[in-house]
Amino acid sequence: MQQLVSELLNGNRRAAARLISLVENDDPQKRELLREIYPHTGNAYVIGVTGAPGSGKSSLVDWLLKELRRDALTVGVIAVDPTSPFSGGAILGDRIRMQDHAMDQDIFIRSMGTRGSLGGLSRATREAIQVLDAFGKDIILIETVGVGQSEVDIVRTADSTLVVLTPAGGDSVQTIKAGIMEIADIFVVNKSDLPGAERTATEINMMLDMKSDAPWRPPVVPTVSVANEGIEELWKSVQDHRRYMEESGRLIDVRRERVSRELTEQVEYLVKSHIWAQVKEEIKLDDLVGKIVNREQDPYSAAGELLETIDFYGKDT
Amino acid sequence: MQQLVSELLNGNRRAAARLISLVENDDPQKRELLREIYPHTGNAYVIGVTGAPGSGKSSLVDWLLKELRRDALTVGVIAVDPTSPFSGGAILGDRIRMQDHAMDQDIFIRSMGTRGSLGGLSRATREAIQVLDAFGKDIILIETVGVGQSEVDIVRTADSTLVVLTPAGGDSVQTIKAGIMEIADIFVVNKSDLPGAERTATEINMMLDMKSDAPWRPPVVPTVSVANEGIEELWKSVQDHRRYMEESGRLIDVRRERVSRELTEQVEYLVKSHIWAQVKEEIKLDDLVGKIVNREQDPYSAAGELLETIDFYGKDT
Repeated sequence: MQQLVSELLNGNRRAAARLISLVENDDPQKRELLREIYPHTGNAYVIGVTGAPGSGKSSLVDWLLKELRRDALTVGVIAVDPTSPFSGGAILGDRIRMQDHAMDQDIFIRSMGTRGSLGGLSRATREAIQVLDAFGKDIILIETVGVGQSEVDIVRTADSTLVVLTPAGGDSVQTIKAGIMEIADIFVVNKSDLPGAERTATEINMMLDMKSDAPWRPPVVPTVSVANEGIEELWKSVQDHRRYMEESGRLIDVRRERVSRELTEQVEYLVKSHIWAQVKEEIKLDDLVGKIVNREQDPYSAAGELLETIDFYGKDT
Repeated sequence: MQQLVSELLNGNRRAAARLISLVENDDPQKRELLREIYPHTGNAYVIGVTGAPGSGKSSLVDWLLKELRRDALTVGVIAVDPTSPFSGGAILGDRIRMQDHAMDQDIFIRSMGTRGSLGGLSRATREAIQVLDAFGKDIILIETVGVGQSEVDIVRTADSTLVVLTPAGGDSVQTIKAGIMEIADIFVVNKSDLPGAERTATEINMMLDMKSDAPWRPPVVPTVSVANEGIEELWKSVQDHRRYMEESGRLIDVRRERVSRELTEQVEYLVKSHIWAQVKEEIKLDDLVGKIVNREQDPYSAAGELLETIDFYGKDT
């Protein structure tokens, strides 16, 4: 493990890939590993890209990669597909992209699918970001399919979030309603050569007008990703947003919030492990479950009694 | 609160609606309420219906309702839309349906949207089921939009799960791959008058052949919901599945699993509330977060130290 970590820090791609697999598979050594690499993280800037399937996200990310490389930035890409059970680069689209960038040692692409629960996926994504951050990537791009709540959770890890819409979708307004408005730092109207593109942009701007007091007004950037149109402007917008985040102190704030959530989760993880270890020793859970199934007891009172049995409350006094 | 609960048990619709609002809004009195009604639950049979937007789920559920009413069963319907911020019957489709069934005192329809997190929605759905169960409904139908992991979590509450696909979708196989296979007790190929319907059914059956050792083989039922075709057969399939669940003992098993998860959640809820109350008293979390942000400490060690500070571990010995 020690060896793997030092290989990671020395820029060994295979070590990065293996460590991401470890966090993805929830390996028992994971916590130890994350603890080791933590001091080496915090340098990467994380960009999230989300949008409905078919919005052209992937080709957008591809062209964006070229802009980033032109600026000599090293990049890690994590393609998250909550609807796919595949991971580890098995997705067709990624294989094609990997061929494209295979010769470039400064790009690392990885796909992640749903293995267990969605909560597990969003956690694994956050941990993979840590790995690529310690790996030394300047920018980490997270691409997620879809615009549901699940993707919102994943994207919440990003410093700048791009929401990709299309005029063809017709559901642009619907999408914005669904809580996407709040997470977008930049709106991308992709496939802007299609009819209705201007109307889509206007609709978004009208919505933005309604909360015009926000310190950052998300730009609405038209692109045609297959033709590499508008990508330069998009990259400029991302840089603008990054500058805003850094200069306003907002970046520090969101990172504090993230650390705070992480700490909370870690505390709860330790507490839970400890409590359940104790419960297993002292209580026949099966009997209790049986009583609740038979409506002899309710789960709410039962939970309280269970904690009293292991003297959880008593210990404080 | 006492009053509301006894009104619910007496079949008062307005009480049911208000109590669902209470759980949906995560009212402080919620736990007390759920404890009160718990002894009156466990009688309803829960049917989940999930499928992509546009698969015709809603009209399917509508016709199914008529079958259920013909068998003199009382029904509660919860329409869950994880992509919608609306709830409380504000969705257009529901308003139309409510008009249809408004005169029928034995049908209760309610829609729920995403208020907070998705986890919150799936919890609120489970609690709304408890309310309608105590309300005395024989059958509770949960209809959810989409086929992502989020819906899987919601549907896991159902005793029988119907997965609705369409030949038009083209993504039928894709959908099945995404973990839907595991949750389907019955496959519905809706819009079966469209070309490709038979191919879709064949594909599903081929997938089912691969795990032919399962004790229940999900039937694949073709329907044309707008024309009320195949609904009777579908209802028969649901009844077959229910009989299988009851006679094989599987129903008791899944309900035990559900109670076990619920008990776990309740214990962890109590533990968390207690721990955080203590932490707030004794520890300056902000300082700790600052240290972690500056990489002077990592969240994993910090979590352990925090618990030692409040003497969480020490109390056991």
